[in-house]
Amino acid sequence: MANSRYEYVKGFELDDRILPNIWVVVRIDGKGFHKFAKAHDFEKPNDVNALNLMNHAAVTVMEEFRDIVLSYGQSDEYSFIFRREADVYKRRAAKILSYVTSLFTSSYVYNWNVWFPNKKLEYAPSFDGRIVLYPTDQNLRDYLSWRQADVHINNLYNTVFWNLVLKGGMTNQQAENELRGTFSADKNEILFSKFGINYNTIDPMFRKGTILLRKRTQIPNLPNVKRQLIIPLYEDMIRDKFWKEHAEILGKYL
Amino acid sequence: MANSRYEYVKGFELDDRILPNIWVVVRIDGKGFHKFAKAHDFEKPNDVNALNLMNHAAVTVMEEFRDIVLSYGQSDEYSFIFRREADVYKRRAAKILSYVTSLFTSSYVYNWNVWFPNKKLEYAPSFDGRIVLYPTDQNLRDYLSWRQADVHINNLYNTVFWNLVLKGGMTNQQAENELRGTFSADKNEILFSKFGINYNTIDPMFRKGTILLRKRTQIPNLPNVKRQLIIPLYEDMIRDKFWKEHAEILGKYL
Amino acid sequence: MANSRYEYVKGFELDDRILPNIWVVVRIDGKGFHKFAKAHDFEKPNDVNALNLMNHAAVTVMEEFRDIVLSYGQSDEYSFIFRREADVYKRRAAKILSYVTSLFTSSYVYNWNVWFPNKKLEYAPSFDGRIVLYPTDQNLRDYLSWRQADVHINNLYNTVFWNLVLKGGMTNQQAENELRGTFSADKNEILFSKFGINYNTIDPMFRKGTILLRKRTQIPNLPNVKRQLIIPLYEDMIRDKFWKEHAEILGKYL
Amino acid sequence: MANSRYEYVKGFELDDRILPNIWVVVRIDGKGFHKFAKAHDFEKPNDVNALNLMNHAAVTVMEEFRDIVLSYGQSDEYSFIFRREADVYKRRAAKILSYVTSLFTSSYVYNWNVWFPNKKLEYAPSFDGRIVLYPTDQNLRDYLSWRQADVHINNLYNTVFWNLVLKGGMTNQQAENELRGTFSADKNEILFSKFGINYNTIDPMFRKGTILLRKRTQIPNLPNVKRQLIIPLYEDMIRDKFWKEHAEILGKYL
Repeated sequence: MANSRYEYVKGFELDDRILPNIWVVVRIDGKGFHKFAKAHDFEKPNDVNALNLMNHAAVTVMEEFRDIVLSYGQSDEYSFIFRREADVYKRRAAKILSYVTSLFTSSYVYNWNVWFPNKKLEYAPSFDGRIVLYPTDQNLRDYLSWRQADVHINNLYNTVFWNLVLKGGMTNQQAENELRGTFSADKNEILFSKFGINYNTIDPMFRKGTILLRKRTQIPNLPNVKRQLIIPLYEDMIRDKFWKEHAEILGKYL
Repeated sequence: MANSRYEYVKGFELDDRILPNIWVVVRIDGKGFHKFAKAHDFEKPNDVNALNLMNHAAVTVMEEFRDIVLSYGQSDEYSFIFRREADVYKRRAAKILSYVTSLFTSSYVYNWNVWFPNKKLEYAPSFDGRIVLYPTDQNLRDYLSWRQADVHINNLYNTVFWNLVLKGGMTNQQAENELRGTFSADKNEILFSKFGINYNTIDPMFRKGTILLRKRTQIPNLPNVKRQLIIPLYEDMIRDKFWKEHAEILGKYL
Repeated sequence: MANSRYEYVKGFELDDRILPNIWVVVRIDGKGFHKFAKAHDFEKPNDVNALNLMNHAAVTVMEEFRDIVLSYGQSDEYSFIFRREADVYKRRAAKILSYVTSLFTSSYVYNWNVWFPNKKLEYAPSFDGRIVLYPTDQNLRDYLSWRQADVHINNLYNTVFWNLVLKGGMTNQQAENELRGTFSADKNEILFSKFGINYNTIDPMFRKGTILLRKRTQIPNLPNVKRQLIIPLYEDMIRDKFWKEHAEILGKYL
Repeated sequence: MANSRYEYVKGFELDDRILPNIWVVVRIDGKGFHKFAKAHDFEKPNDVNALNLMNHAAVTVMEEFRDIVLSYGQSDEYSFIFRREADVYKRRAAKILSYVTSLFTSSYVYNWNVWFPNKKLEYAPSFDGRIVLYPTDQNLRDYLSWRQADVHINNLYNTVFWNLVLKGGMTNQQAENELRGTFSADKNEILFSKFGINYNTIDPMFRKGTILLRKRTQIPNLPNVKRQLIIPLYEDMIRDKFWKEHAEILGKYL
């Protein structure tokens, strides 16, 4: 049986190479994670183990793709920033997108028990992904600022909301009414006056999201041994300070 | 902190809608499954549990995407055929591709223990995917014929090869030399004369791959109850017979 | 001076090959032809010379692109249908689109004097173009039906409108009011009762648009000499009759 | 006759919007201009009228597209640089590409007689075009350097070649042999020693190509009246000097 007669169908696969010299962002999002969080009793407003599991999966992706210079995660989403010159899989868009999404998903399911040793994974969770291209460094920074501002807005809201519900005894509807039309300052005030919480002292992972960078790091207990490791940071990416301290991100070489 | 200042970056997400009225094939492939098979001692030439796990994951995908009319799997690859009119996620290519790949991966890892209850999953496996469009029914049939002819060629070769090695006591190199330049008839003859194996009686899942179709099926032990179920078939898709018997695949409505 | 240092910029040219085995339609439209028609005193509602000039330019395009099996023009637009298997310029979309549009434009300007020997071309007219792909023969027929139904609707309206204005002495506004809410039958009736015009006897080029086909044709005055010529037809493409009489269009070979 | 039944075919027109904030280069090339030049007896190695006609057509394009900040022409090609923020036709690629190519072609044919008042245009010439995107200013500069280095290489060769043929009495083949393996310095030497020509004194339009920029310019004979005009320059774009003197090109605002 000759296969050659049908091989012409390979010709329908079109080239989807990404433009050279441009920031490539792969962002993945949990599918139906509102329901997934409920089914697995995630803590409100933030479940530290669920976030650590996201970070764990993101590290798996970064270990595989050396061209990722920064990853940024919050809630059920993660963004992977490939350096401009990345040549992995000849920059084929579908290949990169599908592989990143698959590897992230696989690591998330595989490592569930590491972070939830006493909780059964009820069903197979999934993520979707997209590729977005940013021509300039400023565009890239604005993208990351957009995602980080999003964390701030959502997390402040959720923190107050769940304190009103869980500690304040309000129904969801009552808490929603209470918060309608409030500004950041109002929400900070509610948190402090009603619950004695200073928002700025909350776990920075909740407030800032998680930034993963590659850094030459001293190996503990091994004097003089340094390795390039992927480390988590919970810093402000909106201001210039971050970009000065980690100048290698926008630099041409790591 | 206003988010609006950065929201312009959303404008960099471009429309990737798939052309209407065309067969959409999503094919996923295992990444490094040669190594993965070795690490998990998959049986040679075919590991029935590994194939069933692939089929299990494919069923998960079909249950989610009602627009998939046929799936076809072999070895570490699976093709999902979306009907021409599919409007899922407004036909956005990246969304469909990433979600299918993610869901398949997730189900594969999640259900590992179902098929390998006594074997530890050593690391997180992954898949990549691609989308290919076929304008005509004939193109689609030729695509599936291409994949199925591929199964035949590979499986016949592998069956003889591993019999020569595992039962015939040859080294891999000796088996390779023995098979160089042989035709199908020669391979069938070796199988029969040396090992008493009639190739055509081998498990059809190995010889034909697995076709998944939706069929109204009588529910066992429930007289008069029929449901649309996803069922596996191991038939020849190259000849017309299959397409006549399952005319709903190319028909406009299931 | 070495050029090689800059040649990397060629790598930014991406592949834009069109999917195989699909109908490729290039449609071009006049830019600002309302103003252009006015500036050149085109006759209302139809200027036969202006239409012939469009047809002339379309023939130039068809002579260059042997893969065009049918062209269809009306008003200031023209559609060129490339056969499914066309391999011209390796199906590169930008190449095909820009060359067709350029050649049409060039021929339009070049041949202006053929059709308007006593009228100066006041300025350089231009066209824009687009490529649209149609997977099935039915889609292609529906595309052409769409364009031809458009001719009918517009031409019937324009014919009555300009008769009301030019012969009936109405202002544009009065004619517009007269026609508001009328159906085809009403318009036919106005034409007949007020101006003695039977719409169906009007020049079919105005009513049906112009179809250009390649046909083996007897050369006048040369008995027994037949050549493949590009000939104009003014037939109904909506009904089946046309497609039966010109079965070669949808056939694989001309 | 309802048109609505067929209107679904509009849904096959896909979005082809260009990524925001990126340099958009439209480059057009003459189709078969070797033959065209021969058919119209263009002077060798450069025909000043033919180049002026190209420039004339390019000015027509720039007058229409205010977003073009620089155009660069040589031989039978022209590049149009749209500023990063250009929003013309909502950045639809096919629209921009086809319209630029059409307008250039139209102006070329329309103005033929301005530059060749005594020469009949023998047939309708045409151009094809492409769009290339460049993410950074450096990429754009390298693109223009690439084209300008190309002019230098070709023009120096052609200048020597045609002097050897036209003044030196060589056949084309002899001139080709004479030049094989020579470097720039050799070619300059041949020009000077054999024909008394100092290459650097040749018309800069031939040596550098034509750059078109928009400049506020004093209107002749109208003291104190300045207008933004499109003016031709024949400068070196490879060195920094040009970009410093015309800083508005890479600046955000004109």
